[in-house]
Order: sequence, then C-alpha cells, then structure tokens
Amino acid sequence: MKDLFFKYIHELQDTITSKLEMMDGTAAFKEDIWKRPEGGGGRTRVIENGTVFEKGGVNISGVHGKLPASMQAYFKVGEVDFFACGLSLVLHPKNPMAPTVHANWRYFEMYNEHGDIIDQWFGGGQDLTPYYLFDEDAIHFHQTCKTACDKHSPDFYETYKNRCDEYFYNSHRDEARGIGGLFFDYCKASDAMSMAQWFDFVSEVGNSFLEAYVPILEKRIHLPYTPEERNWQEIRRGRYVEFNLVHDKGTLFGLKTNGRIESILMSLPPHVQWVYDHHPEPNSREEQLMRVLKTPKNWV
Amino acid sequence: MKDLFFKYIHELQDTITSKLEMMDGTAAFKEDIWKRPEGGGGRTRVIENGTVFEKGGVNISGVHGKLPASMQAYFKVGEVDFFACGLSLVLHPKNPMAPTVHANWRYFEMYNEHGDIIDQWFGGGQDLTPYYLFDEDAIHFHQTCKTACDKHSPDFYETYKNRCDEYFYNSHRDEARGIGGLFFDYCKASDAMSMAQWFDFVSEVGNSFLEAYVPILEKRIHLPYTPEERNWQEIRRGRYVEFNLVHDKGTLFGLKTNGRIESILMSLPPHVQWVYDHHPEPNSREEQLMRVLKTPKNWV
Repeated sequence: MKDLFFKYIHELQDTITSKLEMMDGTAAFKEDIWKRPEGGGGRTRVIENGTVFEKGGVNISGVHGKLPASMQAYFKVGEVDFFACGLSLVLHPKNPMAPTVHANWRYFEMYNEHGDIIDQWFGGGQDLTPYYLFDEDAIHFHQTCKTACDKHSPDFYETYKNRCDEYFYNSHRDEARGIGGLFFDYCKASDAMSMAQWFDFVSEVGNSFLEAYVPILEKRIHLPYTPEERNWQEIRRGRYVEFNLVHDKGTLFGLKTNGRIESILMSLPPHVQWVYDHHPEPNSREEQLMRVLKTPKNWV
Repeated sequence: MKDLFFKYIHELQDTITSKLEMMDGTAAFKEDIWKRPEGGGGRTRVIENGTVFEKGGVNISGVHGKLPASMQAYFKVGEVDFFACGLSLVLHPKNPMAPTVHANWRYFEMYNEHGDIIDQWFGGGQDLTPYYLFDEDAIHFHQTCKTACDKHSPDFYETYKNRCDEYFYNSHRDEARGIGGLFFDYCKASDAMSMAQWFDFVSEVGNSFLEAYVPILEKRIHLPYTPEERNWQEIRRGRYVEFNLVHDKGTLFGLKTNGRIESILMSLPPHVQWVYDHHPEPNSREEQLMRVLKTPKNWV
C-alpha cells in the first residue's frame, strides 16, 4: 500500500504542476529535493509571482524512522517506527476574485519491533477559501467533491463536508477559514472498507482536484478588481495565516518535529495585511462573504 | 498594590501615547474602551497609517473574576479568583531603518475563597526588533535597560537580558525574533525584594521605555530606503507574526481565554510578506542582521 500510494502522489504532483504551469503561462514551479536527516525526504515545488499564481506550492514527502516523541504522545503509542507520505498543496492566486485552494492526501503506517504493520490509515481533503463569493463556484467545488465521494459511500460527502467545516475554523474569531470542502482522517480498514477501497476513495478525491478547482480559476482570473478589493484579499489572507499558525495541526506538527520549515510554510500567502478592527461595509460583497463564514452553508 | 499599579499603567499609557502622537505628527491614536463580560475591561489605543508609525498599539487592561479553566491548569491551582492588569505595546514604524519595539508590564493576583491574596507577582519587559542593524541603537537600547535594572539589583540586567533572548526565540527557524532587551516574570516577594520594591523596579523599567526607544526612532525615521529594503522589512515582519502566533504565551493565552481579539492581535504588523526560501545576499546588511539573530550578542 505504501509503495502504491507513494507512486500515486508522485504522479499526481506531476499532473497537477504541469496543468497549473500551463494555466499560469509565465511562471514555472521551482523544484527542491530535500532529505530528512532521520529518514526520507521530499520534493517541494513552488511557484511565485506568476500571472495567475502569486504564490503556491505542490509538495510531496515520504518520511520514516523512529516516531518522534511528540507524535508518540499524540498517537498514544510507545517507541515505534513509522512511515508517512503525502501530497500537500496550497495555491494563492493574485486576483482577489479567484479563491485560494488547499488540498492534502496522506498515508500513515506504524510498525512493531518485527517490522509488522500495527496501524495504518489514510487522511486528507480539499477546501476552498474565496475572498469574494460566487455561489456557482462554491456549488461547483462541493458538487465535484460530492461526486467523488458518492462513488464510494452515500455517507462520505455529508460526513467529510461537516468535518471540514469543523476543522478549518478560526475559533478565536468565530468564523470559518473558507467555504469548506472535504476533510477526512484515520481512514482505517473496517468491515465496510478495506485499505484497498480507502486507496480508491482517496485517489478518487485526489484525481478530482483539478476538475474541482481549474474551472473556477478560469472564470475568475481575468475579472477586473480594485485596489480596495485587493486590500480585502490581503486582510482575509491574514486570517489564513492565523488559522495555519494557531490552529492547523499539520503545520504545528511540522514546526515542532523538525520538519522542513520552508516546505511547511509555503502555505503562507505572499502579501498579507493586518488592519485593526476591520469590518466590511453593511450589505457589501465583503460582508456577504463574512455571513457565509459565520454560518457554513450546504452548497449541494 | 493592585490600585497603585493600575493607576501607574493608566498614567504611563497617557505619557507614552502623547509622546508618540507628537512624534508622528499626522496620525492620532484611536481609543476603544471595552468591557470583559466576566469582569473588567480595557482601554485600547491604536495608531495606523501615520508618518512615523505604520501601525501600533498601546493598550491597558484590568480583568478579574474566576480564573479561566485553562489558566487554572497552567498555574496549577484550583478554582480561584484572580485580578490581572497590564500595559502592552507594539510599534511598527513605516521606515525599515527604524526598529519595531514591544513592551509589556503586568501584575497578577490570586485570591482564596475569603478574598485574601494567595499569590501575587509582576512580569514584563521590553525588546527591540530591527530590520537593519545599527550597533549604536542596540547599545543604546540595552544600556537604557541596564541603567534601569542596575538601580535595583546588580544581577537583574544580565538575568533578564538572557531570559529575553531565550523567550523571544523562533525555535522553528533557530533564530531570535530581535535583538532582545529585558524579560522578567513571576517577580514575587522574597527576603531580597518586597512587592513594593518590585513595583519600584517594574515602574523604573516602564519609565525608561521612551528614553530607550525614542532617540533611536529620531535617528532612523528620516533615513532613505529602497523598495528592496522595504521588502526585507515585510519579510522579517513575517517572522514577527510567526513568533506571536506560534510561540508567544501571552497571545495564545488571550486567544484561548476569550480575550478581546482585536486588542491582542494589534501586535501583528500591517503589511507582511512570505517569500519561499528567502536568503539574504552574502555579506549584505540583511545577512549581518541574520548573524546577530542566530547568535544573540551582549551589547553592553
């Protein structure tokens, strides 16, 4: 399973970065291959200052060795070996009419002293963070998520959509980071789903990513925008930073377990503002967005 | 003591904000009085888009009531009442040649069921975060801190200077946030120091703030700078955000104990950048700063 999924994310990284480079037209992904001293490493691909993408990263990594002490406590296990691999992406378009997107698909294994697998699971998801809300974009993104889910279980979309709304939540502001999508974790073998079936589901979601996001980008990246709309985007990007640095378990894990900092923090937006006590004008498009972030909606 | 210190920080807030407004010349502090539902409140003063100050806050608060559960665990006490008050300030000048400064002076009391004080202490400090290093500024700032300390104990400067270097450290980047200053906490009555003597020390440091910072500002705010130097400032401000959101206990406490978000996060800089894997040119002024941040120096 580990080889199968590792191969899958390599190919998916290629597919996604080729398509995004083509869309951007001017900027290319810069590739950094890195090694983790304790075992494994990764292939980071970052695009900056493009026509479409102001900043973005599509990274894969596969790491293994002794489970770090902080993760032993987190998973409530003793000293075990582990393997973890995944693809993480965050794209920050320049145009404030185009949403930021985040996606991640990952696989985890733990072993006993004989090298037998004692636990294994998949996790991941994809979610959208618009600065200006276009209902048809939110519906398209969620419909694509739902179509991928429905092929595997009638319950998955509702369950993982709700988990996404719960997880990507800036509790200190009482607002969602974005308009959600899917979030799943600890997808383990059960009577209902074998690991092979979970692989099919996770790769189905992975394969749906470009279909979920690219049509939205195509509609929005040529729209005109004002300096005020750009300011609003940069202020909202501040909330993205707040979520990633204060609440996101993946980011904090990486920072506290000696991950490659630049690969972890590629998720942070390029230009960001913090304005004291900023509130959008009543009945403005900015306030429309806030209303949806305060009370997550069902889009499909 | 609580009334004495609360009065002191009110007056200090007035002194500091009048002086800073005069220095800025164009922008005024906006005042927000807020109430905490569980008891107490604060007076937040924020300045934005000034000639000198791109953003800054000089806030006081005094809060009381039942100690929140998360703080009970932190202080290892049961259900007790508390009172806490303090002044917190962060100033982000526009000119990258002028350093950001942070200061905080605070007092804490806890009570038993009869309302007797069971514990009380002072905490605080002040520290400087330059974007371009001028040795004479670092020396002036530290010398002012040392002069204030030396009036109260020959050990204070060295002890609190080292604690400052340890505390304001971005461990995930292996670099200091800035060039330090003073950091002290849990200053409690002992054979050597009564609470009245601690008050004298803390107010001595508070009174030294303008003397420590204003002469540096006066030297730097009229220096010319390039767009590249401004970019460097915005990138370094990103590290300031990382420290405050990932490591700063005060910020995280505030966010997790239902503090007034806008007063807590006034510390975040106005315009910030994250650039993937940015490294200054060898032997540049930017690299000079990094060398000092990697290995904190003794300035006096």
